Amino acid sequence: MKVTVFVSPKTTVLDPQGAAVEQAIKSLGHHSIEGVRVGKTVTFQMEGADTPEIRDEIDRLCDGLLSNPVIEDYRYEIAPE
Amino acid sequence: MKVTVFVSPKTTVLDPQGAAVEQAIKSLGHHSIEGVRVGKTVTFQMEGADTPEIRDEIDRLCDGLLSNPVIEDYRYEIAPE
Repeated sequence: MKVTVFVSPKTTVLDPQGAAVEQAIKSLGHHSIEGVRVGKTVTFQMEGADTPEIRDEIDRLCDGLLSNPVIEDYRYEIAPE
Repeated sequence: MKVTVFVSPKTTVLDPQGAAVEQAIKSLGHHSIEGVRVGKTVTFQMEGADTPEIRDEIDRLCDGLLSNPVIEDYRYEIAPE
């Protein structure tokens, strides 16, 4: 199955990368855009089915490696293949 | 409206960041995971409605600033608010 993890900065946390992108967007003349936030996605193939055990494993992976729980939120989607 | 842009390395392009994450995942004992690819998301608020002109503007933004068309693909979702 295919797993896609979306990691984004918590809304309460300053996002300097997003601020830099927003400045670049505005310098290109797109003045109707604001509130830019930059996150990341991690996609991978995983053996097994969508079970609570597998979701526990993905949660451990997200908490321990793919995101920094202090400043980032994550969610993920599982697509069978 | 809220726009979310998903940028990912083209499937034909080597993804060293994904390879590094995959090595870290395997070193943590998750051996059922492979094919890790790392992308990014850019979300922002934009004035206006979902029209062809707005989509043209978002396409120009994605092609010129948010992605490198040589090595990356992008897609985006528009959510009214």
